[in-house]
Amino acid sequence: MTDTVISSATKEVVIGFERPFVMIGERINPTGRKLLAEEMKNGDFSRVEADALAQVAAGAHMLDVNAGIPLADEPALLARAVQLVQAITDVPLSIDSSIIEALEAGLAVYQGKPLVNSVTGEDEVMERVLPLVARYGAAVVAISNDETGISMDPDVRFAVAKRIVERAADHGIPASDVVVDPLVMPIGALGQAGQHAFSLVRRLREELQVNTTCGASNVSFGLPNRHIVTGTFLSMAIGAGMTSAIMNPLHAEVKAAVMAADVLMGTDKDCMAWIRANRDPNAPQGEGGRGNREGRRRRRE
Amino acid sequence: MTDTVISSATKEVVIGFERPFVMIGERINPTGRKLLAEEMKNGDFSRVEADALAQVAAGAHMLDVNAGIPLADEPALLARAVQLVQAITDVPLSIDSSIIEALEAGLAVYQGKPLVNSVTGEDEVMERVLPLVARYGAAVVAISNDETGISMDPDVRFAVAKRIVERAADHGIPASDVVVDPLVMPIGALGQAGQHAFSLVRRLREELQVNTTCGASNVSFGLPNRHIVTGTFLSMAIGAGMTSAIMNPLHAEVKAAVMAADVLMGTDKDCMAWIRANRDPNAPQGEGGRGNREGRRRRRE
Repeated sequence: MTDTVISSATKEVVIGFERPFVMIGERINPTGRKLLAEEMKNGDFSRVEADALAQVAAGAHMLDVNAGIPLADEPALLARAVQLVQAITDVPLSIDSSIIEALEAGLAVYQGKPLVNSVTGEDEVMERVLPLVARYGAAVVAISNDETGISMDPDVRFAVAKRIVERAADHGIPASDVVVDPLVMPIGALGQAGQHAFSLVRRLREELQVNTTCGASNVSFGLPNRHIVTGTFLSMAIGAGMTSAIMNPLHAEVKAAVMAADVLMGTDKDCMAWIRANRDPNAPQGEGGRGNREGRRRRRE
Repeated sequence: MTDTVISSATKEVVIGFERPFVMIGERINPTGRKLLAEEMKNGDFSRVEADALAQVAAGAHMLDVNAGIPLADEPALLARAVQLVQAITDVPLSIDSSIIEALEAGLAVYQGKPLVNSVTGEDEVMERVLPLVARYGAAVVAISNDETGISMDPDVRFAVAKRIVERAADHGIPASDVVVDPLVMPIGALGQAGQHAFSLVRRLREELQVNTTCGASNVSFGLPNRHIVTGTFLSMAIGAGMTSAIMNPLHAEVKAAVMAADVLMGTDKDCMAWIRANRDPNAPQGEGGRGNREGRRRRRE
């Protein structure tokens, strides 16, 4: 039973084995979003704010905040984005950058205990990020690649994750504050991507007792009707034991799959969240409740 | 690697560990379908034929055929239904009855190697159904309940399944011709129903090396938007190792979840079935392929 507690100034979110899945909104990220990048660079954070509110309204429990814009002052932008988002929402944040100075700037202004996204298994990265995580008492996403890149061998990815968890412990960071991302490849490019992810999630949970996350959208890259593939991936990953993901809760198929998976894992007690969400006439899934044909299959049951 | 081969006169379907999931159409079943029951009783099988064709068109790999109508001549009705369905489709059938004489009548007219649905762990049922299955060289669905009913303890359900597989072997039926139904309870009534089913499927596959099936619709009984719950359940069950289900392929959410799960298990090679199904402008899911925002999450990946 591993619980990873993340918080804002006023709200706690727990990523944990016996808890509903934690949806971390992925939208506040200028990578590949030209307009957002341009606006942020020019000091216009209106779209960041709109994305924050929309994702929380759609059910995001946390928000990932990234300000990775080439040739911009990323530390300043990330700190500003973190402050603005914290001013208008109460959900805890994942502070997302590959630039250590940006992570530090975000941590310096953050109110609460954030998730630092991320540390890899590269020695240099671990030696710079982990002390920062320890100093701020944060939790951290551990990505299972190292200097040699992303291994296609899940055993190697597991070993890298294990090394990060051990190194974190050396810095006084408990395994419960390390959320491992097993790295999910596009299934269209690598047919084993799903099975690798599911078996890694199972091993990470059973052998390392850590919580897990991933960037979920990647799995369906290039496929038609990709949101169904992403949602189905998430439900299967939840079945394998995954406890959070960086994802887009605005995609109805993805959110519905996560909520249904919570029902089926028994973490949505008495299906209350499902029933509430699906009884709302404004819910994207509409009305349901056609329980009228039951009992018709086997008389012996 | 267990393969269960089922056939019609002209077509083989293989339920197997490394194969795409086998969808067994559930519709031809008068239980709870008053109109269908009335028609069948009066010798009108037009709806049976229409249901057969519609399910095959929707992608069913096999069809379940049940003629369980109170106070009717079930053996004669089931034999007639089997013959009619075999005359207009080439998919293998699951011959479904709790009346031994009806199973026998269906088997007598069946062309190919059918799936007999079902045997339970009740001694009397095993001693009557298994010799029949052996005599006709059929495969059989083994339902994991016995004289004491359906246990709420998954260990007991596993033990019952094991006993049926062993008893089948005594009759010369190999484990590869026994497809175990772990019994899926409504999740709205039993919050652990999903986890019980997933762990049973995993154990049945790993310890008994048998294929598995279930009546999938039952899981979502009474819930709003139940087809999403059923589809999500199936994808999670597939992730746990389930290899077939008796289900309704006409429900778009259910079928899409199964097809996406095949993609993610790597059994839909190169995602060809998914791409074909989702490129068809007449497909219920419509067009997709919005792969335009990729690569935006983490620059380090």
